[in-house]
Formats: sequence, structure tokens, C-alpha cells
Amino acid sequence: MNDVATALGRLEELAIEVPSWAYGNSGTRFKVFGTPGTPRTVQEKLTDAAKVHELTGLAPTVALHIPWDKVDDYAALKEYAAGLGVGLGTINSNTFQDDEYKFGSLTSSNGAVRRRAIDHHLDCIDIMHATGSKDLKIWLADGTNYPGQDDIRGRQDRLAESLQEIYAALGDEQRLVLEYKFFEPAFYHTDVPDWGTSYAQTLALGEKAFVCLDTGHHAPGTNIEFIVMQLLRLGKLGSFDFNSRFYADDDLIVGAADPFQLFRIMHEVIRGGGFGKDSGVALMLDQCHNLEEKIPGQIRSVLNVQEMTARALLVDTAALAEAQRSGDVLAANGIFNDAFYTDVRPVLAEWRESRGLPADPLAAFKASGYQKKINEDRVGGQQAGWGA
Amino acid sequence: MNDVATALGRLEELAIEVPSWAYGNSGTRFKVFGTPGTPRTVQEKLTDAAKVHELTGLAPTVALHIPWDKVDDYAALKEYAAGLGVGLGTINSNTFQDDEYKFGSLTSSNGAVRRRAIDHHLDCIDIMHATGSKDLKIWLADGTNYPGQDDIRGRQDRLAESLQEIYAALGDEQRLVLEYKFFEPAFYHTDVPDWGTSYAQTLALGEKAFVCLDTGHHAPGTNIEFIVMQLLRLGKLGSFDFNSRFYADDDLIVGAADPFQLFRIMHEVIRGGGFGKDSGVALMLDQCHNLEEKIPGQIRSVLNVQEMTARALLVDTAALAEAQRSGDVLAANGIFNDAFYTDVRPVLAEWRESRGLPADPLAAFKASGYQKKINEDRVGGQQAGWGA
Amino acid sequence: MNDVATALGRLEELAIEVPSWAYGNSGTRFKVFGTPGTPRTVQEKLTDAAKVHELTGLAPTVALHIPWDKVDDYAALKEYAAGLGVGLGTINSNTFQDDEYKFGSLTSSNGAVRRRAIDHHLDCIDIMHATGSKDLKIWLADGTNYPGQDDIRGRQDRLAESLQEIYAALGDEQRLVLEYKFFEPAFYHTDVPDWGTSYAQTLALGEKAFVCLDTGHHAPGTNIEFIVMQLLRLGKLGSFDFNSRFYADDDLIVGAADPFQLFRIMHEVIRGGGFGKDSGVALMLDQCHNLEEKIPGQIRSVLNVQEMTARALLVDTAALAEAQRSGDVLAANGIFNDAFYTDVRPVLAEWRESRGLPADPLAAFKASGYQKKINEDRVGGQQAGWGA
Amino acid sequence: MNDVATALGRLEELAIEVPSWAYGNSGTRFKVFGTPGTPRTVQEKLTDAAKVHELTGLAPTVALHIPWDKVDDYAALKEYAAGLGVGLGTINSNTFQDDEYKFGSLTSSNGAVRRRAIDHHLDCIDIMHATGSKDLKIWLADGTNYPGQDDIRGRQDRLAESLQEIYAALGDEQRLVLEYKFFEPAFYHTDVPDWGTSYAQTLALGEKAFVCLDTGHHAPGTNIEFIVMQLLRLGKLGSFDFNSRFYADDDLIVGAADPFQLFRIMHEVIRGGGFGKDSGVALMLDQCHNLEEKIPGQIRSVLNVQEMTARALLVDTAALAEAQRSGDVLAANGIFNDAFYTDVRPVLAEWRESRGLPADPLAAFKASGYQKKINEDRVGGQQAGWGA
Repeated sequence: MNDVATALGRLEELAIEVPSWAYGNSGTRFKVFGTPGTPRTVQEKLTDAAKVHELTGLAPTVALHIPWDKVDDYAALKEYAAGLGVGLGTINSNTFQDDEYKFGSLTSSNGAVRRRAIDHHLDCIDIMHATGSKDLKIWLADGTNYPGQDDIRGRQDRLAESLQEIYAALGDEQRLVLEYKFFEPAFYHTDVPDWGTSYAQTLALGEKAFVCLDTGHHAPGTNIEFIVMQLLRLGKLGSFDFNSRFYADDDLIVGAADPFQLFRIMHEVIRGGGFGKDSGVALMLDQCHNLEEKIPGQIRSVLNVQEMTARALLVDTAALAEAQRSGDVLAANGIFNDAFYTDVRPVLAEWRESRGLPADPLAAFKASGYQKKINEDRVGGQQAGWGA
Repeated sequence: MNDVATALGRLEELAIEVPSWAYGNSGTRFKVFGTPGTPRTVQEKLTDAAKVHELTGLAPTVALHIPWDKVDDYAALKEYAAGLGVGLGTINSNTFQDDEYKFGSLTSSNGAVRRRAIDHHLDCIDIMHATGSKDLKIWLADGTNYPGQDDIRGRQDRLAESLQEIYAALGDEQRLVLEYKFFEPAFYHTDVPDWGTSYAQTLALGEKAFVCLDTGHHAPGTNIEFIVMQLLRLGKLGSFDFNSRFYADDDLIVGAADPFQLFRIMHEVIRGGGFGKDSGVALMLDQCHNLEEKIPGQIRSVLNVQEMTARALLVDTAALAEAQRSGDVLAANGIFNDAFYTDVRPVLAEWRESRGLPADPLAAFKASGYQKKINEDRVGGQQAGWGA
Repeated sequence: MNDVATALGRLEELAIEVPSWAYGNSGTRFKVFGTPGTPRTVQEKLTDAAKVHELTGLAPTVALHIPWDKVDDYAALKEYAAGLGVGLGTINSNTFQDDEYKFGSLTSSNGAVRRRAIDHHLDCIDIMHATGSKDLKIWLADGTNYPGQDDIRGRQDRLAESLQEIYAALGDEQRLVLEYKFFEPAFYHTDVPDWGTSYAQTLALGEKAFVCLDTGHHAPGTNIEFIVMQLLRLGKLGSFDFNSRFYADDDLIVGAADPFQLFRIMHEVIRGGGFGKDSGVALMLDQCHNLEEKIPGQIRSVLNVQEMTARALLVDTAALAEAQRSGDVLAANGIFNDAFYTDVRPVLAEWRESRGLPADPLAAFKASGYQKKINEDRVGGQQAGWGA
Repeated sequence: MNDVATALGRLEELAIEVPSWAYGNSGTRFKVFGTPGTPRTVQEKLTDAAKVHELTGLAPTVALHIPWDKVDDYAALKEYAAGLGVGLGTINSNTFQDDEYKFGSLTSSNGAVRRRAIDHHLDCIDIMHATGSKDLKIWLADGTNYPGQDDIRGRQDRLAESLQEIYAALGDEQRLVLEYKFFEPAFYHTDVPDWGTSYAQTLALGEKAFVCLDTGHHAPGTNIEFIVMQLLRLGKLGSFDFNSRFYADDDLIVGAADPFQLFRIMHEVIRGGGFGKDSGVALMLDQCHNLEEKIPGQIRSVLNVQEMTARALLVDTAALAEAQRSGDVLAANGIFNDAFYTDVRPVLAEWRESRGLPADPLAAFKASGYQKKINEDRVGGQQAGWGA
């Protein structure tokens, strides 16, 4: 394996963006459970997110969701966040919760609906200017439930036109990141179902358009690290939405379902130049803490990414390349797995302590009394959630 | 093919139970769309259901969901339904919308929670006595989201105990029907994930316990007609929840995603003695009309079942058996498909007219003004839905 | 629906290429069954293929597989085929049956192996000049079985280089068609696993490079007609390999597993301008007649494509567009399905008779004595197969 | 976590049966690669298997496949194995490589074919008496490729009858173990596709009939550890066929695709009393070393099982139960994962050395010169393989 110190040196560059909505309520179509202490405002969400960063040193920015996180004064919000020690990150648009969007938003054959959806994105770009956000992330719920319900070719063309108008409004330093999803909430066809579609659409837009890869948005069995490799190779990987799944878009804690897969993904990220501050690849969480506690759930998540990144950094790439060249399947696989099977938790605890962070962030959170305090403080008001 | 007249003669025996909740609002975790005319009460749901039966002659009974359809006087409700020309059918329990059931209901390690869940089923049995319902259908959302979250063996044992107590309370003519589901809302393990589990549990209970097969509750690629065959062979197929899916539990209109699969299912139902009033197999719909209109959605659904049943009844079973015996793969497949490819719609239109039903029930509904009337009448109040 | 006569008028343009290897033996890793009458030579394969065309009028060309169909004189072979009434079509390369290709062919890190694989394709192009074939189809078995076994990024780059050299050798009227496949025979990663990869690679090559869509090469649940739409929209759909599947790359008779899917695919082909002689989209079969008889299996296959094309041509596109625009989900789906549910077999039988073809090609084949004759004639020699 | 020493103490009980056919050639339908040193006889297979046991101490018995491993004198073979330090284990029957079984074996509607298939199993039982084998393992390739091809209900009934006759012939200490498989080589329906079918069939047979769970024989996404739990709970888990897969029945090295899944499986094995010599659960490998070296592939496999078993033995079950009871999702998951993330390789190396085994069995094999020797010695003859 690589020298541990050297490998871990690169860990400094790891930064994971947390989503504001992870601190609010979410769930399944069957039930959304509320919990004490849930934020009522975007400010409270930021406070929770800042706690995650304080304890882990891994989560310096927070993604916002518009309109869920709408405020009157975004400059003030930016300052508020800065005061908490975090920055504002990606702006996520939302075109899936209004009745108007029942049959589509950017793909709608109804000009007025499409206009409204485009304008929403232009508003988001305005917000980005105020917050200093770099990325506009677009995930569309657009699609159909029944064969014949709509003309899927026409929808694709309208999507291209709508994106073009949004793209044209981007500032010089801003990027458009287009997410794809295999299915849900549409159950027959999704307008951006796979990386190929997102790639073709962003390629047509230009150099400021990229693909967002959500690890839960693929068909069963899909080799995700291959897509990571390919998008990096094509210069089009803009960001990740990290989570994990056993079945569909389960939105579980990243690394919880298949840690070996997360390790392989991080290996390709590093291999392809997608790791680090100047890589142009943003690492984000996008999860749904349905049963587990939210703040500890986020802490667990960023630690999982860190642990698998650390393991991936340990891969002895020189020895691996040699084994690969020689066609020694078992040796190559063994070198690769050696890194995965190494228990990095002790050195990561040291790494944290050397930076003034708690060795065990989850224990530190438990001991901090923070949850008790917000349970008591956050009484009344409307708990934040997907519908809020 | 079989003689059309003879084959279609058996169609008289086709009866499809519609669910009261199909007429209320439902949707995805992203959005539930409301629509004008949506029922506010169980009585209004029954009225809509009766309309479906009036126009198709196919849907004589309505399944209820407790507590969604709770009323003070079930005998009165039964009479109300009878006045509309329909009967009350299966009682569906619900242990997935209370905070208490967050970590399980009949499987919970918390005795008080389990007690409450059992009592809810005992209440349902009381309701069945009042409504004259034969079947208690149990679908559990129980499961876990993370490996290690709970002891899956202990849960299975507690499930067996809980079911035993419920089973013991059944009347002589009553049945317990246990539904299985591959995943959702639980994303790591489901306590009744497959037909094998439902079979083992109901086998342990006794002769009044059966399996419910929901056509959307399987792993990708599962051969559902094989399970139909097997459960009929084992004498344990109690009922169907019909719907269709391209991906997961999409809950689309039955037959919409893969009509050939529905044909194959009905072929095995007929082959295995599961068709007809005395078969002991109840055919039910369980769908989620998210984008399409609800009442026409239900009409379309029962017509789809009828059309595929008619095609299945056309299979020339003697010629098929002969081709199968001779190992003539293409001939056997051809005989089977001949029935599927036959357009039965004209003869079904005649069949309807000969019974005083409209030849085209969907057109008749459109022409009836019923939707316009309920849109105007049903103003105010709380539209029924999964959470209502 | 559309006027039947008009719709069926377009059927004249339907031409389906049959693969020479369909007439030889193939099977599974567990067993390859041999059958009497199996061709021993490419000439005998062509004779069988010509019989399919003679009886159906649908299969005017035959694809060859090199080296399986290697001969000394391709001009003579072309003449031989012409004498039988068929033409020679696509040339399929083969880099998966030599020991050298164990760890890859066009992607190999071993220069000599890659050289050999490229040269094989250059030989194929030479053959194309002799046969007058337009398309060089490349399907690669390249991939790995274990994480870490090889550097998947390096392989992708080498693939691009190899393809570039092959592409450069194409004649003006020749095309390179790159097939993708989800998995098998590689079980961890495939070098061209999805349409996105094939698209990106062929886009980099230029205007004579296209994607081949094999209907059995996708992840479970993939919406194939969406990919058809997208590739037509992007101008990159070169050809189909038709077959059907319930699970993986089962290579069953096209339309056998899900006829409604084949209908939807043909709808998008027509919608996107991919139907007809000048469309640039080649329709091919690629199947594996493991249990069923081979020649009747091919007849059944081309008839299935014709039947679903005819149904797709019946879609009342004007009414459909109107229903789609109005957001009437059930009406649009109903118009779409009306065409699918129409039994076109009687009019297709008439269509055949009006052209001097047998009304029932399968019955005509049975009555022809052809199978009996080849069973008697083709004794001795080596039956053709995948390994031949 | 549990005390390492105590936990690892139980490792003594770990015994993994290796299959004789792992040392012969196997592959995919596209290509079977041969390699130098491949055994030509069952004796040579046993020699290779003994090497695996010599270096790991984990593989004391070898499963045979009839007719692949047919010999004249099984008592002599048993002695031969004993001389090498290994025993003969499970007898695997084979009804998938004869032309007669094209349409089925134990399920065939042809009485003569069924008779032959039953007799083959009776022969296997005779062999078991000679070898002292305990288990007769039945995996059937039986199934169909096309809807309507055969009557799946009739086949199920005939399967039951055939199994009954075989079961009746078992000696007092012998067991019948029925394997299930989702698909392949049959592509429409498989006669024993799921654990439910195998359970129902073996339940009908009696107390000496059990289910065999092959980890690669499930639908995508199936929770295998749940099935392990359920079968142990029902007293019907007879044996495992270990391997791993990313897609279908890929037959890769166990633990290679998803080591966390193997850990979870071993956790349920231990939890449910399936671990150890008296548990009645046999752990076997069943893999296909297509690209990697065979003997090291087997060594890697048994080490993987040992490593994941060791990790599973480390789970702090008391703390886990407490966290589960309290509904602390993250704590329970954390305790579970703590064991998985522990690097047991150093203590296992010590464990080996303390028993006179090489610390690194793979390095020891490489250093031993064994492969070089068999490459030189095993020249000429027919290399063993699936078809041999």
C-alpha cells in the first residue's frame, strides 16, 4: 500500500457539501415522521449543518433548495452562514411540487408552464449571484407514467431549448449541473433517465454545463464507477449527490449499503483527477433520514465518505499498475482490496485530534447536549420538510 | 383457439374488487396532486365505486381501509353500499401511518406497540363481522433501513406470534390474507418480502390463512405467473392486488405496463382453478392514480382485467397440451400467443350490450356528466387520501 | 386509428437482416444442442436464410460473422447469395474466441494483442469491399471480472485509439457501428456497457460512426424506446440487434418476451424517422435458437417484427398528439394502445398473398419438406456454431 | 466488539467444501479458456484441492460431480483422497448435458426421460454409500424459454413425484439438498426458481430434505441474508453454494463483489445456529474461475469466507441487542459495522502460523512451485471441464 502519511495528506482536500433539506423532515409516500428539534427556518438548518462541520471539519458548505430555503435577503443569509463557519453552496431548483408541473416543467408542451419553470431557474441564478454560489443544480421530476401519454421526443427537444435559455443566463463563473434519474416520481419514462442523456444535453449547452451523478439514480446492477470514469474522461463530471441504496432511490446514508462500491467510486474519482479543490467536481450528500437521527446521520455520512476516500488514497497504484499489466487478475484485485480492507479509523481519529477536532465526532455530538437544546428550543412553528 | 362463445361464457364469473382508496388522492413522496370531485367521505368513495360497477358490471364489491374508512355504524354503511348496488369486501388494516409504528408494528420488540397493532387487527375483525367481509388483508410496512438496525430473526418470530393471535380471533367464514412486498417503505429488509415468507407464515397459522399476491411487489424480472401457479398448487393463493409497474411498486393501472404478463397470469389462474366465484381467489385492484383521472382509471383497470381474462379463456388448451407433449416449442408458443393476439374488444362490447351495459364504458362515463356533477358538488371538506 | 391501407402501405419498406449464425448451433454455457440439418458451411447458412426470405419477403440480406463465415472468394459468395435471392449485409467482427483476447482486444494494454485486433477489423473492411457490405459492426467482449483487475480509464482511451485506426480505414460509403452491452461475458465491468459510452466513442470518431442497439443488452427495467428516441434525435442510431429477454441477454425470439415493448420501440423508430430504406437505420436479428427450430425461429422473428411494425403504423398520430397536448393521460394511452390491441394478422396474411407469398409462412415451411431434405442432405461435416 | 480471542476461537469450526470442478476449465457461452496444469482426472482435481487445504486448513472436503467425476471404484477414490488429507463430500448430480434433457429431466413429461433422470440420482445415492458422502445435491437446469412452451404446473407436480422416489432411496444418514436458481439456462421459467419453491418441495419430502442456497441465484436486489435467516428459522437450510456476482449468476470468487453482503450472510448464519460442525449447514464453494488462476482462486475464496466469518464473530451481540431494543438506528448500525470494518487479516495470519500453516497462503502457493510442477506434469490427455 501507499505510505499512510502521504496518502492521508491528500485528505485535507476533502470537502463535502451538505444539503439544507437533510435537517428537515422527509420520508416515504407512506409516512413522513417528524422529530423534536427539527429546524423551522433555513437559519436553523444552517446551524445544524455548521455543527456537522464543527465536529468533522469535512462539511464547509451547505446547499440550498429553492423555494424551500427562500429568504428575502440572501446576502444576509450568506453572512449568517459565515458567522456559523460555513458557506452557501449549490442552489437546487424545484419544479416538482406545484400543481402546474403535473405533466412536466422544462419539458412541458404548455408554453406558460415552461416559461414559469425557466423563470424559476433564472430566479435561482439571481440568488446564486447574491449567495456567491457556483453551481445551479437541476433535477427534474419530468416524465410520464404511461406509454403514449406524451411525445418523448418533443419533450427532449423542449428540454434542450429550456436549458439553453437558462444556460445563457449563467454568469462567467457559474455552472449548470444536470442530474439524471432512472425513475421516480415518473414511472414509465423520465426525461433525463441516464448519464448519456445528461451528457448529450450538457454537451449541446457548452463548457459551463456538467453532469450530476446521484449514486442512487441508476438501474439495478449499474457499474457506477465506470460512469464516474467516463464522465471524468469526457470532462463532464460536475458533481455527486451521494447516498446509498439496496433497491431504488432509497436515499440511505452514503456507504451504508455497499461500502466497497463507495471505495471503488472514490478510487475512480482520484484516478480521474476528480479529487480536490481544483478538480471541478463537487461532492454533495443528498439523503433522506427517514428513521435515523438527522444530525448524527449527516455526521455518519461525511465520515463514511472520508473513510472510503482514505482507503482509496491507500491504493498502491504503482504495484496495481504492474499487476494489471502482467494480467495477474488475483494479484491486481488483491492489491486493490488491500486498501479497502485496511482499517483507517484509528489514523483518522488521530488526524482529527491533530486538527483540534473530536476523535469521535458522533460521541462528541452526543455529549454536546446540542440535540437536547434544539429539542427544547425549537418548539412551535412549522418543521421544515420537503413540502415546506 | 377455443370457441369464443364458450370461452366468454365463463366471463360471467369475473368479479373484481375495487379499493375505496383508489378514489381518493395518492401519489409519490414528491407530490400528491388533488383533483376536483375527489371524495371526502367513505360514502362518496362508494358512490364512485358503484359508478364503475354500473358501467362495467365487473366491480360488485369495494374493499375498505381501516382507519381511512372508519365509520360509527358499519351495518348502515353496508346498507348504504347495497343501495348503490355494491357490497363491502375485504378489510385492509393499516399499521404504517402512526408514529408508534416507526420501527415496526406486528414485529415490534416493544410489547405495547405490538399490542396496539394486534388490537387494531382485532378491531378490523369486529368490523368484518358488521360488514360481512370475508377477508382480512394484512400488508405490513415493517422492516428496517440499515444492516444491524434490528434482529430480523426476532422480528420474524414476533410476527408469527402476532399473527397467531389475530388468526385465533377469526370467525369460521373469515380468512386472513398476508401480503408480501419486496421493498418500500423499508429499504434494507422487509419482514414479509416474498411469497415464501408469506407461505411459511400462513402455513403455520392454518387453513384460514392465505397469501396475497400484489403484482407490483416483486424483484425485477420475477416470473409472477410461476408464483401464481405455485400458490394455487399449494392451496394458498388467497387474493391478488392488481396493478402494474415498469420499475418498482409503481402502482400503475393493471395491464398498462405489460399486458402480455397479465394474460399469462390469468392463464395460470384459470389453469390452476383460481378463476370463478368458488375458487377462493379474490381479484382486487390496488393502484395509485397519480396523474390520470381516478374513476376512468378504475374503469380502464377492470376492463383490462376483463380483456386479458377473455384472451386467456381463448387459449386452445387441448391443442396446447398436444404441442407441449410433442416438444414443439414454436407451435406451443404460437397456440398460446394466438389467444393473446386476438382482439377481443369487439366481442366484449357486444357482451356488454347484451347485458344492458354500455358498449364503451369510458365513453359512457364521459357522456354521463358524473364527473362534472361531483366536481360541483364536492366542494369544501377534506379530500380523502392516504393520510386522511 | 390510421387508415389501415395507408399504414400498411409503408410496410413495403420493411427489411430485416438475418444473421448467418442463427442457422448454426448456439446455446448456453451449460449445453449447446445440435440438430439435424444444421448448416456446415456459409453457403448452407445462406440457403436457409434465403428460404426465410422466400417465404416472408422480409429478409433480403444476411449478416456475416468473421471468421465464422470466412471464405476464399467473397465475390463468389456474393454471387452465390444473389443466386439465392438474398444479399450480403453487415460484417460482424469477432475478438472473443481466441486465447489472446482473454484480457481484452481493442482495449488491451498489450500492444501486440491490440494490433492483432485492429488488423482483424481491417481485414473485415477488406471483406466489406468484396461483399459490398455497408456496415462493420463491432461488439466487444472486452471487460474485467474483478475490481482492480485493470485500469478501466486506460482501457477506454485505448479503445478510442483502436477505433480511430479502424474508422480511418473505412470507405466513403462504409460505416462503423459500435454495439454496447451491459454485461457478459465480463462480469465486473464492460468496456462499452451503455449507449452513452457508444455515443461518446462514435461521436469522437465522426459522421460514419454509429451506435448499435441490441435490445437484450440493457439493465433490468431500462426504457429502451427512450434510447431509440434519443439516438435518433442525436443522429447516431445505426442499427438494431433484435431479440428479446426476460432476465439478461437471453437472446430469445424478438417480441416473444414483451410484444408491447417491441411495439413501443417500433413506434419510436417511426416517430424519429428511423423507418424505411433511406433512414440509415438497419434492422437486424441477433438471437440464439437454443431450444426451438432455427429456420421456423427466424420466420417467427421476422413476422413478429412485421406485426409490431404494422401495429405501430396504425397509431393515429394526429389524435394522439391532440390527446397529449390536452393532458388527457388515459385518452392518449388509449389511442396508443388501440393500435397495439388491433389484430393485424388477417390483413398481413392478405398482404402476403397479394404479393405471391404464402399466407402462413410457418405452415408453408412445414409443408415444403425443406427441413426433411436438409436433415437428409446435411450429413457428415462439422455443424456450424459459435465456435466453428 | 467481542473479545477477539473468544470470537476467533470459534473459527476452528469453520470448514468449507471445495468443488472438484473448480479445478477444471469453465467459462462463458462465448469462450472457455484452457490453462496449463489443468487436471485431467478426478485424482488430479483432488490433488489440487488437497493443496488448498494444506495451505489454509479450511477446506477438508471435496464435492464431486457425477458423471464428471465418475470412477470405477469409489472406495479406492475415497482412500486416495484420504491419502491426500481430504475427504469426499457432497455428490452433485447432473441432468443438463445430455440431449435427452433438452426439455427437462425430473420434470419431463416424457416418462422415459424422467425415468433416466431419476435413475441417475439413484446411481448417485449408490456412489454416496461408497464414498460416505452425506449430501445429494440436486440442481436442475429444467425450465422453459417461451411462454406456453410447457405446462409449468404439470412440471411442478412431476418434479414432486420424481423427488419423492429419489428421497425414498436415501439412507438414514443421507440428505437430499435441493438448489434453486432464478434463471439460466432456462430463460422464461425455471422449475425451482426461488427458495419458496425449494422449501415447499423439500417440506413435502420430509426431514431429510433441505434447501441449498447458491448466493448467485437470486433476482437483482434480493436480501439474501433474510433468506438465510428464514431457512434457518424453518429448519431447512441444508447448504450454501458460495460465489459472488454483480449481475446474474456470474460465479465470481465469493466475497469479491460485495464483501459486506458476505459478512451479513455469515452474521445470520451464526445468529441462526447455522455455524459449526453440528449445525447441519454445509458451506460449499461453487464458482467458475474463468480468467483467474484456479488454485489461487480457490485459496482466495476460502480465505474470504474465513475473513468475513471472523468479522461476523466479532459483532458485539449484547451491545447490538441493546441498541436495537432502544431503537437507536445509528448506534445499532454502527456496532454492526464496527465488526465489519475491523481488519482481521493480521490476527488470522497469526492464527494460521500458530497452527503450522503459512501466514500468507497465496504467497506460500506461489513460492511452492506447485503450479510449475503441474504445468510440466500434466501434458497430454483431456483437460477436465464442464463438458468433460
